[in-house]
Amino acid sequence: MKPIREVAGSIGVREEELELYGRYKAKLSPALYERVKTHPDGKLVLVTAMNPTPAGEGKTLTTIGLAQALNVIGHRTVAALREPSLGPCFGMKGGATGSGKAQIIPAEDINLHFTGDLHAITSAHNLLAAMIDNHIFHGNTLRLNPQRIVWKRAMDMNDRSLRGIVTGLGDGNGAVREGGFLITTASEVMAVLCLSESIMDLKERLGRIIIGYNQEGEAVTASQLEAVEAMTILLKDAIKPNMVQTLEGTPVIVHGGPFANIAHGCSSVIGTRLALKLGKIVVTEAGFGADLGAEKFLDIKCRQAGLNPAAAVLVVTVKALKYNGGAAKDKLHEPDMKALVDGLANMKRHVENLKKFGVPAVVAVNHFADDLQDEVNRVLAECQEMHVPAAVSNVWAEGGAGGIELAEALVKLLGEEASGYRPLYGLDIDMRSKIATIVREIYRGADVAYSPAAVRSLADIEKQGYGNVPVCMAKTQYSFSDQPRLLGAPVGFTVQVREISLSAGAGFAVVQTGSIMTMPGLPKSPAAVHMSMDEEGRISGMF
Amino acid sequence: MKPIREVAGSIGVREEELELYGRYKAKLSPALYERVKTHPDGKLVLVTAMNPTPAGEGKTLTTIGLAQALNVIGHRTVAALREPSLGPCFGMKGGATGSGKAQIIPAEDINLHFTGDLHAITSAHNLLAAMIDNHIFHGNTLRLNPQRIVWKRAMDMNDRSLRGIVTGLGDGNGAVREGGFLITTASEVMAVLCLSESIMDLKERLGRIIIGYNQEGEAVTASQLEAVEAMTILLKDAIKPNMVQTLEGTPVIVHGGPFANIAHGCSSVIGTRLALKLGKIVVTEAGFGADLGAEKFLDIKCRQAGLNPAAAVLVVTVKALKYNGGAAKDKLHEPDMKALVDGLANMKRHVENLKKFGVPAVVAVNHFADDLQDEVNRVLAECQEMHVPAAVSNVWAEGGAGGIELAEALVKLLGEEASGYRPLYGLDIDMRSKIATIVREIYRGADVAYSPAAVRSLADIEKQGYGNVPVCMAKTQYSFSDQPRLLGAPVGFTVQVREISLSAGAGFAVVQTGSIMTMPGLPKSPAAVHMSMDEEGRISGMF
Repeated sequence: MKPIREVAGSIGVREEELELYGRYKAKLSPALYERVKTHPDGKLVLVTAMNPTPAGEGKTLTTIGLAQALNVIGHRTVAALREPSLGPCFGMKGGATGSGKAQIIPAEDINLHFTGDLHAITSAHNLLAAMIDNHIFHGNTLRLNPQRIVWKRAMDMNDRSLRGIVTGLGDGNGAVREGGFLITTASEVMAVLCLSESIMDLKERLGRIIIGYNQEGEAVTASQLEAVEAMTILLKDAIKPNMVQTLEGTPVIVHGGPFANIAHGCSSVIGTRLALKLGKIVVTEAGFGADLGAEKFLDIKCRQAGLNPAAAVLVVTVKALKYNGGAAKDKLHEPDMKALVDGLANMKRHVENLKKFGVPAVVAVNHFADDLQDEVNRVLAECQEMHVPAAVSNVWAEGGAGGIELAEALVKLLGEEASGYRPLYGLDIDMRSKIATIVREIYRGADVAYSPAAVRSLADIEKQGYGNVPVCMAKTQYSFSDQPRLLGAPVGFTVQVREISLSAGAGFAVVQTGSIMTMPGLPKSPAAVHMSMDEEGRISGMF
Repeated sequence: MKPIREVAGSIGVREEELELYGRYKAKLSPALYERVKTHPDGKLVLVTAMNPTPAGEGKTLTTIGLAQALNVIGHRTVAALREPSLGPCFGMKGGATGSGKAQIIPAEDINLHFTGDLHAITSAHNLLAAMIDNHIFHGNTLRLNPQRIVWKRAMDMNDRSLRGIVTGLGDGNGAVREGGFLITTASEVMAVLCLSESIMDLKERLGRIIIGYNQEGEAVTASQLEAVEAMTILLKDAIKPNMVQTLEGTPVIVHGGPFANIAHGCSSVIGTRLALKLGKIVVTEAGFGADLGAEKFLDIKCRQAGLNPAAAVLVVTVKALKYNGGAAKDKLHEPDMKALVDGLANMKRHVENLKKFGVPAVVAVNHFADDLQDEVNRVLAECQEMHVPAAVSNVWAEGGAGGIELAEALVKLLGEEASGYRPLYGLDIDMRSKIATIVREIYRGADVAYSPAAVRSLADIEKQGYGNVPVCMAKTQYSFSDQPRLLGAPVGFTVQVREISLSAGAGFAVVQTGSIMTMPGLPKSPAAVHMSMDEEGRISGMF
């Protein structure tokens, strides 16, 4: 591992612009952005994927490996990634820092407390929660309705027992009411931090957060509770992007990690903007498949931040395609050309969708050692037929060297095809039209049905003056539809909208289809029990 | 502010032994202790105080100022302090980093997330909690009784609504049971971290933590849940001491901050040991007044860690003495020689008590600008009559220069009087005798009464083989007795023991007298609402 000073120095970051966290992690000081903000922007490349499957597609892996490969072929590239949540590390084995020869390091630190950003977000979230109950306890001058508090508490831990709780039990402990915990990545504070452009913007957004409703049914905000300044103080370091490196010394900005269902699933605007000033190419990723991740990246993050994505990389694997074509989970390593051909419809639709945003796309076939060559060739042939560049990526086994073909295809695309990026829908159309556009154009569903609660929420949101925000779809990631088992490229389905809630601080309306989990649980044998640490502090069993 | 590298360098710490957290904070690597462990120990000086009053006595202030003063007069001194809890910062105005010209810096950072130690402790605590409910959810092979889980959850926030909660509500969310949150400083993980001598000792202690009881009524431990290794991994950096500096550049090790009622209220053993290798004198403090803080420092921390305290400084103020002598809270600035003389009984008893441990004592009269000179003189005269060295300390206004007289008195005492430190009681006597000894010798009470629950707990603890641990008294800090309004030097009272619980990991039995608050609340107008941050990130209103 190189000292992070050297890594940062390799892209022109000065030592005094780093706030070191040990030798291998650093926060980037606001002075750095001030110095480089007039530099020209690099080209922004989104790495997204087909619909995820139990086999794992390797989107983060490909993002890291591609950034390494671009540097190998001489293009100064910075990766911009989401920071992992601590909780899930102790559930299922494996971190969120890539794997094989395409990893960001120090992986243990990044997956654990890193530079404390998630802890700071947890604290800011819970300070607001404590101030709500404290306000009710001390006389409730805002006339908050204790039964209509929508601000839960947050913890960066997988703890299903905290999903639904009753608080305030015991003499002198305040109003008894129902509540619950979100995992920190699902906190609106996380979404707010990731979309903020500055400290002042952060404050304004925090102030707009709706914490509940008063006895008259009017929304009450964090600003009315006078919680905003203290929350901002808690976030003073969390708002600064973090820098680490890949196994090959490629600089990586890792900053922010909002949920990809009830939030937009992209790393921070501040981090991306800075990366664009430091790299000729910036490779970033978005959560889940392209129907959710890319759509939100393009319709929420890029639109709001005025980013102009130059291209998208769609990650597919032979196994995931076969799974989407009907092959059983435990048969994915067996030859099954029919399942593969059927599954290609999933890839094809994602490619078409990306073009609807005006973003040139390249397909990355993430290679597994047991992939069959004729199946791989079939995927490449399909891409050729679609006139979409494609390349096999073998970065897990070979690192940057295994991604050169992909990197070259991307660079060629960047040179030949200018991006005509535009969001899918305008903000001035009504909320139902926005939802209908996504369902029709991206999911290819036949219709949208609204629950009575959703209809009421829609009216409320428009009444509150938030009719012009983009929508943030919360939908299963496994299917284009809202039904997890409808794989491939389904049509004719009706998307059921259960509830719509306003994330006024983040600046989007969350459209919930089905029941969305915002606090995961641990499995029967959690990863935690397989970890260990020796007397010298060496960790094993984490990955 | 000097770079922390320079501050650390001034006491021989090498750059490669620092893990920087920005420019002004660092963790000290285990390699440092390995290098210096054969160096001779410095002299360990405890700063303690008379019983606290609403006026504030300035114990942390005096600790910091005294360390500065000792350096001014040429004695290489390191301070070893507790790290503040985040939660209380947002409740009452003011941090835990000293004030005036006797502060540790960067004060905002230290009072906020610092180097993340408290967040790590919170995470380790809550991972164990999540694993408990997860174990019950997935079949409960340990036959845990959901109604007898004693391990609560933890949060570093003042949130009274979380004191008593019900968890597990909702379909599929596990066993419904009563629970609650402690503030992180009250977590046994904090006490364990502070008493641990190494990673292996930390693991053993974590493993002994009792999380609840099974259907047969037997204690179940964290080790049985296989949570220990993962908890240790979460604590891998938290176990390393932190270094900061005072306003005058004196090096300060700030590490660990357990509650002073249900825990022992002292900074970490690892931090103190390291400080003793780096300084000729180490000035440290303990929570609350000497009846609690010094007693636990001497009977729990020093005994367990084999530390040999060389002297104690007892901080008093004219105002606190008058308050203890019966003056009203709002009349403390008015002349009242009678109240002062009556209040001196409190000081006198604390001085006598320190001598029972064989520890030479010096009195520090912490000076306030509006103190009356004849009252100050009266305090000094009383000390002279008791043959106890005393000095006025004016470090708030003058920094180290204001503490020179105190520093000189201390150095003289260290040169003239060898410490004959011994704990107050032996560990082999039974638990009731330990409690009786403290009540008789330190509190000067007439008797101890045990609730039926306490009697049962005592029997349980001895049955479990923990009869030989020291006791950790949880008592009001305002009085020698267990009644907060019994000021001065009360006699004849009976201490009521409500409950006794075993902190098997920390290695002590917590003797609870009265009801002990382990999760504070926020006041009507929390400090949080008076804070602000500008666009450059400058904070105001925190102190």
